[in-house]
Amino acid sequence: MEERDAVTVFQLANGIEVLERTPAVLNALLAGLSDDWVTANEGTDTFSPFDVLGHLIHGERTDWIPRARIILAQGPDPRFEPYDRFAQVQASQGKSLAELLAEFARLRAENITALRVMEISERELALTGVHPELGVVTLRQLLATWVAHDLGHIAQIARVMAKRYREDVGPWRKNLPVLDR
Amino acid sequence: MEERDAVTVFQLANGIEVLERTPAVLNALLAGLSDDWVTANEGTDTFSPFDVLGHLIHGERTDWIPRARIILAQGPDPRFEPYDRFAQVQASQGKSLAELLAEFARLRAENITALRVMEISERELALTGVHPELGVVTLRQLLATWVAHDLGHIAQIARVMAKRYREDVGPWRKNLPVLDR
Repeated sequence: MEERDAVTVFQLANGIEVLERTPAVLNALLAGLSDDWVTANEGTDTFSPFDVLGHLIHGERTDWIPRARIILAQGPDPRFEPYDRFAQVQASQGKSLAELLAEFARLRAENITALRVMEISERELALTGVHPELGVVTLRQLLATWVAHDLGHIAQIARVMAKRYREDVGPWRKNLPVLDR
Repeated sequence: MEERDAVTVFQLANGIEVLERTPAVLNALLAGLSDDWVTANEGTDTFSPFDVLGHLIHGERTDWIPRARIILAQGPDPRFEPYDRFAQVQASQGKSLAELLAEFARLRAENITALRVMEISERELALTGVHPELGVVTLRQLLATWVAHDLGHIAQIARVMAKRYREDVGPWRKNLPVLDR
């Protein structure tokens, strides 16, 4: 654990360990679950587990690997396309949860293969692109964000689901901080 | 989703859907993962993913089903044993993550069987026991808490893992609230 005191710890192989597990995590958590759980959210303009899945699919299509390619190309215009956080509302319409889980698993597997084929070096991790809002970012930051973004959305799904029982737990609520986050 | 406006929504079958998925979720998230991920925590007296797993095992052994039995027995002393939140520090010592995952999966499967065999009725969900700190609680509250407790710890594991990359994500940190929770 000595790494943890360092300012940055990201290593590509270590990040891929998480990226390649996410489809199975979402499958274990959501496949076959009642709609009560899958469509619960935290209020207007917040994501249900179903919405999160669509959002992750959109990221696989338009965000992580396309942005990594822009950085690695080091072309004359290193700006990323803006990312639409609500694009999945249209894209997921009429699809079942099972379809979304399968689609995400397929896209993620393709993108991990693409990432491995890139054979990104330490030097290349320091290359930069331009985020439309955040400005100059490195490839290392982009890839670390991909991993943290997965984990954040797994945490979100579990939190949103837990909140269904916020009142049901009675006096235990004060011992369950996830219910009031 | 009409249920969500009600104060309480807990139904036993609906809760069991989550309880029976947790071992596979933890397996998908943690099995085979590097120690860097599994032993990361949020500082002194906070849980790593490894610690959480031990804590969940301790709950299977001493908390949920034993307390449900105390309530259902309606004996002269309906008080629960206090629950030791750090019991796993001893109990997990020398065990591998794979052993803990297998132990949790086995205990959880046994406990779901035990729960089903109880054939708990609506009337019985309203029976009460006495929590050493929280006072009178119902069986419904206990079982809803079991579910929310699982989900809270899944969220915690994902959050603790995400925080390893808190610095690595650079300017994306402000878009990833999980890193500062």
